[in-house]
Amino acid sequence: MTLPVFLLAGTPSGAPNAMAFAESAAIVCVLGILGILLTRNNNRELKPRYMFVLTVSSWFIIALLSSLPFYLSDNGISAADAVFEGTSGITTTGATVFSGLDNFDRDLLLWRSILQWLGGIGIIGMFVAVLPFLRVGGMRLFATESSEWTDKALPRMKTLSRGLLFVYLVFTVIAVTTYWLSGMGLFDAFNHGLTSIATGGFSTSDMSMGKFNDLILMEATFFMMLGSLPFFLFVREMHGQHFVLFRDQQVRLFLAILLVVPLLLTLHRWWVSPVAFDPFHNYVSTLFNVTSVVSTSGYASEDYSAWGPLAFVAFFFLMFVGGCSGSTAGGMKIFRFQLSLIILREQLMRLLHPRAVFTRNYNGRAVSDEIISSMIAYTFIFLLCLLIITVLLASLQLDFVTSLSGALTSLTNVGPGLGDIIGPAGNFGPLPDAAKWILSVGMLMGRLEILSVVIVLSPGFWRG
Amino acid sequence: MTLPVFLLAGTPSGAPNAMAFAESAAIVCVLGILGILLTRNNNRELKPRYMFVLTVSSWFIIALLSSLPFYLSDNGISAADAVFEGTSGITTTGATVFSGLDNFDRDLLLWRSILQWLGGIGIIGMFVAVLPFLRVGGMRLFATESSEWTDKALPRMKTLSRGLLFVYLVFTVIAVTTYWLSGMGLFDAFNHGLTSIATGGFSTSDMSMGKFNDLILMEATFFMMLGSLPFFLFVREMHGQHFVLFRDQQVRLFLAILLVVPLLLTLHRWWVSPVAFDPFHNYVSTLFNVTSVVSTSGYASEDYSAWGPLAFVAFFFLMFVGGCSGSTAGGMKIFRFQLSLIILREQLMRLLHPRAVFTRNYNGRAVSDEIISSMIAYTFIFLLCLLIITVLLASLQLDFVTSLSGALTSLTNVGPGLGDIIGPAGNFGPLPDAAKWILSVGMLMGRLEILSVVIVLSPGFWRG
Repeated sequence: MTLPVFLLAGTPSGAPNAMAFAESAAIVCVLGILGILLTRNNNRELKPRYMFVLTVSSWFIIALLSSLPFYLSDNGISAADAVFEGTSGITTTGATVFSGLDNFDRDLLLWRSILQWLGGIGIIGMFVAVLPFLRVGGMRLFATESSEWTDKALPRMKTLSRGLLFVYLVFTVIAVTTYWLSGMGLFDAFNHGLTSIATGGFSTSDMSMGKFNDLILMEATFFMMLGSLPFFLFVREMHGQHFVLFRDQQVRLFLAILLVVPLLLTLHRWWVSPVAFDPFHNYVSTLFNVTSVVSTSGYASEDYSAWGPLAFVAFFFLMFVGGCSGSTAGGMKIFRFQLSLIILREQLMRLLHPRAVFTRNYNGRAVSDEIISSMIAYTFIFLLCLLIITVLLASLQLDFVTSLSGALTSLTNVGPGLGDIIGPAGNFGPLPDAAKWILSVGMLMGRLEILSVVIVLSPGFWRG
Repeated sequence: MTLPVFLLAGTPSGAPNAMAFAESAAIVCVLGILGILLTRNNNRELKPRYMFVLTVSSWFIIALLSSLPFYLSDNGISAADAVFEGTSGITTTGATVFSGLDNFDRDLLLWRSILQWLGGIGIIGMFVAVLPFLRVGGMRLFATESSEWTDKALPRMKTLSRGLLFVYLVFTVIAVTTYWLSGMGLFDAFNHGLTSIATGGFSTSDMSMGKFNDLILMEATFFMMLGSLPFFLFVREMHGQHFVLFRDQQVRLFLAILLVVPLLLTLHRWWVSPVAFDPFHNYVSTLFNVTSVVSTSGYASEDYSAWGPLAFVAFFFLMFVGGCSGSTAGGMKIFRFQLSLIILREQLMRLLHPRAVFTRNYNGRAVSDEIISSMIAYTFIFLLCLLIITVLLASLQLDFVTSLSGALTSLTNVGPGLGDIIGPAGNFGPLPDAAKWILSVGMLMGRLEILSVVIVLSPGFWRG
C-alpha cells in the first residue's frame, strides 16, 4: 500500500485521498489477520474442490477490497461505481465509470494503474499455478508444457515464477522509460507503462491515448503486443531456448492477425473516405486500436466505431479473439480458435472418409479428447453467459448494441464496448447501477475462464 | 406447373404472367430431358461423395429454376431479386424483396407460396432420406431412429415417405380450410395455409399477417407450431404409437419455450407501456410473433422490434433457436442446444470427479462421441459462416444490426431480420444486389445444414 509519493509531489492535487488509502489499508490488514487466525490450524489437503473455491473467492474478495480507496475517497463515488472500477482494474479490463480523468485525483488514477499491473501479474501466475491444475477450458494443453519442464529438470515452479516476475518487471520498466523519453510526463509515463504491459487500458485522460503522438502510439502497440504473448515463452527464451516464441502456433496466429487486419481496415478507411486519408497516420492509428482490442487492453486513440460499418463489425468480432494463453490478455484466446479449426477439419475429413483414423496436433504435441471437450464446454458456457448478461442488460432498457457489446467486453475483459454510450468515445458512467454490478461479475467471470465460477455456483458442487 | 386457375379467376389481375410460367416450364422440361439423356447409361454406386454433390447441387439448381417465373414476368424484376425471392421460397425462409404485395400479380404470389410448400416437404424428405446418411451436424442421432424402424419391420422408407406426405397434405388442407372458415378470402387462405405448414412465412400483404384478427393469429400460431414438430413422430402416432410426440425431448423443450418466452415478453410489454396494454390481444400477438421466429416462419403481425430493448434482444437470440429436427423449420434446432447442455453438465461433473465415467442419454438412447463431435463441428461452422456473411454485408456499407441480423436470418431461414431496413416492418428490397446474392447463398447453406455445402466447397473433396 506504499504509494510512490514522488509521483504525486508537485501535482495540482497532491495526495488528497491519503486518509481513504490509510483506512483501506487498515481494513485489509484487519481482515488479513483475521483470516490468518481463523485458518492457522487448518492443514487440509488441497482438493480440486477447495482450489476452485479459493481461486474464485479470492478474486471476488480482492476486487471488492481494491474498490475501497474509491469508495472511501471524498469524491462521492457510489458503491456500484467503486466496485466496477476496482473490478475493471484488477481484471485488467480497463472499462471506466469515471470521466474528467485529466483533472482527477492523481492518487486514485495511480491506484487504478497499480490495480491493473497487479491483476496482470496475478493472471500470469494463475495461468501457471492454478488453471491447468483445475483442467478448465482446455488449459491442460499448457499443463503438459510445464510438467515437461520439471522432467527436463529445468526450473521448478519457483524458478518459473521468479522468471515470470522478472520478465514482467523488466518489460514494465522499459515501457515506463520509453514513454517518458518520448515526451510523456513522468506521471503519465508511469501509469501508461503499468497499464500497457498489463493490457489493462486505464488511461489518465478522457481522450485515452488520443492525446499522444504517433510515435507513442507505436510504442504502446508494441507493449500491448508484448503483454499479449505467453510469458512463459519469454522465460524459456531467457533460459536459452531461442526462437521458441516464434515457433509457437498461438504466437504466430496472433501476430498474423495484427499484420493482416489493420492493413485491410486501413485500406477500407482509405476507400470510405479517401480525402481525409493520411496513409502513415491512419495506419498507425488503425494498428494501435486493433491491437488495443485484440490484446483486450481497451485504450482508444480515436472513435474507431465511426470508421464505417465494416470497421464496426470487425471490432465487434475482434472483441471475441483475445491474446495468447499465459499472457495478461483476456478474450476467448487464440488457441481455442485454433483447436476449433482442428476439430472442423477433422469432421470434414470424417464425412468423406468415415472409417479413417485422425491424429490432432497442436504445437507439435498430440491433443487429447479431454482437452478438446473442455475447450468446447468453455465455448458453450461463454456463449451462454454472453446471452444471459445481454438479456439482463437489455431488461434494464439498454439498447441492443450496448447490451450485447457490454456483455461481450466484460466477459473478454476488453474495456470499451460499442455504441453511443459505452463505445470508445464514451464510458460506463451513465449506465444504471444494476448494470454496473452485472458487468463487474461478468469481468470477474471472464478473468476466471468462466467455468471456474460456474462450477462453484453449480448445485452439484456443494453436494457430498 | 399446373396452377390452380380457379384461385385466380375473377381477381383483378387474373393470370397476367401465364407466358412467363409457360416459358419457365419449357426451360425446366428441356433441362430435365437433357439431364435424363446425359445420365441414362450411368449406374454408378451412390458413394457419400456423390450424395453430397447431388444434394447440394440439386437445391442450388432448383433455387435458380424456381426464380424463372419472377425473372421472366413483365414486372421488371432483376436477376438478383428473382433469385433471392425464389431461394427464399424454396428454402422456406420467407424473406422478401417485393413490396406492394397487396396489389401484386396473384399468380406470382401463388407461385411464392407453392415454392415454400414444396420446400417444406422437400426438407422433411431430405431429413429422412439423405441427411442421416451423410452424417452431417449430429443428424445421425435421428438415423438410429429410422433404422430401428426397419428392425421392427414397421414401415420401410417408402411407407414412411407416404406417411409423411399424407400428414403434410392433411395439415395443409386443415390449415387452408380453417383460415377460410375464419374469414380469410379463399386466395389468402390458400396461400397462408401453404406457407404456415411449411413454416415459410410468405404473405399476400405488406402487413404480413398484421391485417388479420386475433382468432386467425391464434390459428396461425398453432399451424406454425405443427410445422415445427418432427413429422416422423406424427406418422408414428398415426401407426398407433400414442403420446410418442409428447415423450420426445425435442418437442418438450420446443413447447416449453413457446409457453414461457411469450408469457415473459407479454409481462415485459405490460411493464414497459402499461397504458396501451390489452392483456389478451398483446399476449396473442406476442405468442404469434415469437412462434413465427422460433418456427423460422417469418410472418409478423406488428413491428416487434419496437417493443423495447429486451424484446429486441430476445428476438435476436430466438432467431438462433429454430424448430425440431425432422420438421419444416430451420435454425440451429432444439436438439443441438440440448446436446450442448449435456456436454456442459458432463464437463462440470468431470471437473469435480476427474476419474468418473459418464453416459450421455438423449430421448432414452445413448449418444455416441461421433454425434457429439459432428454437432460441435456444425456449431463452429455455423458461427464461422455467421461471421463471414456479416463481414461481407458490412463491407457493402450495411450497418451492424442489418449485417448481423441479415446473416443470421438467412442462415436460420427465419425471414425478417432486425433494424430499420430488413426488420419485421421492412423488407430486403432496398439492399444492394451483392447483398441479395450473398443472402441467397446463406439461405441455401442454412437449409442444407451448412456442413454439406462447406464440404463440397472444400479442396479436399475434389482430390483423389
